[in-house]
Amino acid sequence: MANSEYEYVKREFEFDRRLPASNWIVVRIDGCHFHRFSKIHAFEKPNDENALRLMNACATSMLEKFPDIVFAYGVSDEYSFVFQENTELYQRNERLILSSCSSWFTSFYMMKWKEYFPSKELVQPPKFEAEVLCYPKPKIVCDYLSWRQAECHNRNQYNTCFWMLVKSGEDENKANEILKGTLSKDKNELLFQRFQMNYNNEPAMFRKGSCTYRQKIDITQRIKVNFQ
Amino acid sequence: MANSEYEYVKREFEFDRRLPASNWIVVRIDGCHFHRFSKIHAFEKPNDENALRLMNACATSMLEKFPDIVFAYGVSDEYSFVFQENTELYQRNERLILSSCSSWFTSFYMMKWKEYFPSKELVQPPKFEAEVLCYPKPKIVCDYLSWRQAECHNRNQYNTCFWMLVKSGEDENKANEILKGTLSKDKNELLFQRFQMNYNNEPAMFRKGSCTYRQKIDITQRIKVNFQ
Amino acid sequence: MANSEYEYVKREFEFDRRLPASNWIVVRIDGCHFHRFSKIHAFEKPNDENALRLMNACATSMLEKFPDIVFAYGVSDEYSFVFQENTELYQRNERLILSSCSSWFTSFYMMKWKEYFPSKELVQPPKFEAEVLCYPKPKIVCDYLSWRQAECHNRNQYNTCFWMLVKSGEDENKANEILKGTLSKDKNELLFQRFQMNYNNEPAMFRKGSCTYRQKIDITQRIKVNFQ
Amino acid sequence: MANSEYEYVKREFEFDRRLPASNWIVVRIDGCHFHRFSKIHAFEKPNDENALRLMNACATSMLEKFPDIVFAYGVSDEYSFVFQENTELYQRNERLILSSCSSWFTSFYMMKWKEYFPSKELVQPPKFEAEVLCYPKPKIVCDYLSWRQAECHNRNQYNTCFWMLVKSGEDENKANEILKGTLSKDKNELLFQRFQMNYNNEPAMFRKGSCTYRQKIDITQRIKVNFQ
Repeated sequence: MANSEYEYVKREFEFDRRLPASNWIVVRIDGCHFHRFSKIHAFEKPNDENALRLMNACATSMLEKFPDIVFAYGVSDEYSFVFQENTELYQRNERLILSSCSSWFTSFYMMKWKEYFPSKELVQPPKFEAEVLCYPKPKIVCDYLSWRQAECHNRNQYNTCFWMLVKSGEDENKANEILKGTLSKDKNELLFQRFQMNYNNEPAMFRKGSCTYRQKIDITQRIKVNFQ
Repeated sequence: MANSEYEYVKREFEFDRRLPASNWIVVRIDGCHFHRFSKIHAFEKPNDENALRLMNACATSMLEKFPDIVFAYGVSDEYSFVFQENTELYQRNERLILSSCSSWFTSFYMMKWKEYFPSKELVQPPKFEAEVLCYPKPKIVCDYLSWRQAECHNRNQYNTCFWMLVKSGEDENKANEILKGTLSKDKNELLFQRFQMNYNNEPAMFRKGSCTYRQKIDITQRIKVNFQ
Repeated sequence: MANSEYEYVKREFEFDRRLPASNWIVVRIDGCHFHRFSKIHAFEKPNDENALRLMNACATSMLEKFPDIVFAYGVSDEYSFVFQENTELYQRNERLILSSCSSWFTSFYMMKWKEYFPSKELVQPPKFEAEVLCYPKPKIVCDYLSWRQAECHNRNQYNTCFWMLVKSGEDENKANEILKGTLSKDKNELLFQRFQMNYNNEPAMFRKGSCTYRQKIDITQRIKVNFQ
Repeated sequence: MANSEYEYVKREFEFDRRLPASNWIVVRIDGCHFHRFSKIHAFEKPNDENALRLMNACATSMLEKFPDIVFAYGVSDEYSFVFQENTELYQRNERLILSSCSSWFTSFYMMKWKEYFPSKELVQPPKFEAEVLCYPKPKIVCDYLSWRQAECHNRNQYNTCFWMLVKSGEDENKANEILKGTLSKDKNELLFQRFQMNYNNEPAMFRKGSCTYRQKIDITQRIKVNFQ
């Protein structure tokens, strides 16, 4: 081979990293610099329903593309995909799983943009990072999802207060200051006293996030996005 | 914290993988299923000049985005990016480097599609995988690039023969059979005898690939794509 | 600090490798060059009962030293230790677990040598390598142990035949040639026909290996070595 | 094979970890619980010359055993071994390098004990941990060694003061309190003022540590331990 003298650069430096067998694999996709991205594209604050529906549509496409994803949970600009414990996707090669999931998700997001924002042009490319986790037990996968949902609750309640304050005329620093150190019930109280808003009446998709999973039906498997 | 009982899923299972310091980092982006992608989008064979120029444009955008990339080399649907040895990009976190580079590249490819294929619609999303390598010495980085270029030569010479045969009426199996076991000089001879083609007169971008690097000029650094 | 300029050699190059939580950790200790070591110390062939009892005594000491070892299985010059799935031994740091287990085992072996070989001097230092494995489920730990025991059976049956042949006058090459390609039942037959030996009557410790575990008794936990 | 149904426990869970090529490998051996070990065996304080000479003798044996060690540096109960950058020891398998180095060192320590402590029985087995580091450049290896030597200086100066104070009648807590926050020059001053001791006249082996390396001589390579 003409190139055999150079192949050591692969043989001695390129190591496959296979994720351990019998572990549920969770890939979490996360928007890079979405604070700026959402400003540029004038997303509604604190939650832009179309942007969330676009994320859910991308998640559905991921489930269609990867049959080993059994469940997905999304909040804001992040989405977690749970692959079944014995998946042989890319022979469990960590790098291929990470890089191709982030590429697919990016690709879906751009392809579907027009469907959810028919009158807005995509003026800046969106980018996503990915993280991969291995969990040996279903209990731990559930705790992972509970953790993400607890984060969703914390962030969304904060953001709801923050944007209500800003929209009512406070500047952003003042709004942060008002919220500093407040507990969950203080925030509920603030929304109710100051804005007559009952946080629990906010849309479930904002408060609890979204999940995407397969539903077995009589003839064939189909996918249903559940905006609970 | 409301979610403290779940945080063990991060603390005990999420490990940062920092690439070793004082190593040149090479990220290689590679198209997934581009055989099919190029068919669907009717790329010219064996080389589609617009498709290659699109890859080069994406590489230029990568250099603009990541100041620590010092050199990039591309061939066909792959591109290798060399980050300087002390880059602190994402604190050298392997997963973030991998997933964000593949996402950025995908994103650039889709944004720039129209510029290089104004009359073709992007009907299928492109996807890229990524690999990351650490090289402790400049000599090894050069050998890595030589290896990719040797591969470029082998593949392109083969493909040039293959498509000349197919275009001249051979079926694809027969073309592969004719080429089986041939050496580099045999292929040159075949092109010359049968098609009066001098392989060395083919465009350098097809035979040798492309490189993208920064050029120091008097006032400021600018980027120039070199189709050598 | 006087040495702060050098600390980067630790900070940037020394990475803790924590074994994933909720996994049973198996450390397998294996003699290095024990073929030669056993010759120099004139171990009986195919099995030296004192050498095996010494290995078992070291395993018992390991269980006394490391309370998180729940089970150990040994054969010939190897011993596998199963740590309970949530052990925090060395904060699950892979390198410390590996290096200290091999050091402890070596140390015990030398301290106890005289007890099992009162009339033989230890003329060459024994050395052991170690391997570490993480298993997410008890079923896989059991399969691991079954695998080691299946290996024990295969090797011991082969060695029993080999040494019977050699002791009966065959040279070593000839003995290997006779055994080449034989199945388990062929070897049993050979032992029976040629040497009137019923393999199943050989000591269980030779045929099946040894295990070491804790036995709960009424007052306190004590350790019992079981030469089954 | 009788055991093929179990082999997945190896195939799917046992991953070779090859250290990257073209890197100097440093293995640092470190005594476990040597504070207690040195008390039990009544080592002289702050430095026991015989104990240090025993460490140096073990290092010499390591160099004899492993031809790829080019340099070793020791202080107190630790010793660092530098393997040449292209060593193929155990095919650069991290686990085998770690576990066997710590086992060999332990083994040498016990074999040579009697030579350096002819009148003291080894009543407790010594144990050593090991760490492995990869350095891509000779400069970083030198900085690593400078770092260990700076640590040697700091610790030894402190210990020299501490034990002089204790031997002069201070209790251990009081001694630590006196030394708290002192700089290097304060400690030199304390030794001089209170004990008329010039720290720089202390033996170099105590102040600077020991190194072991190969010396090329005309006929053959021989090893010389240098207590500089």
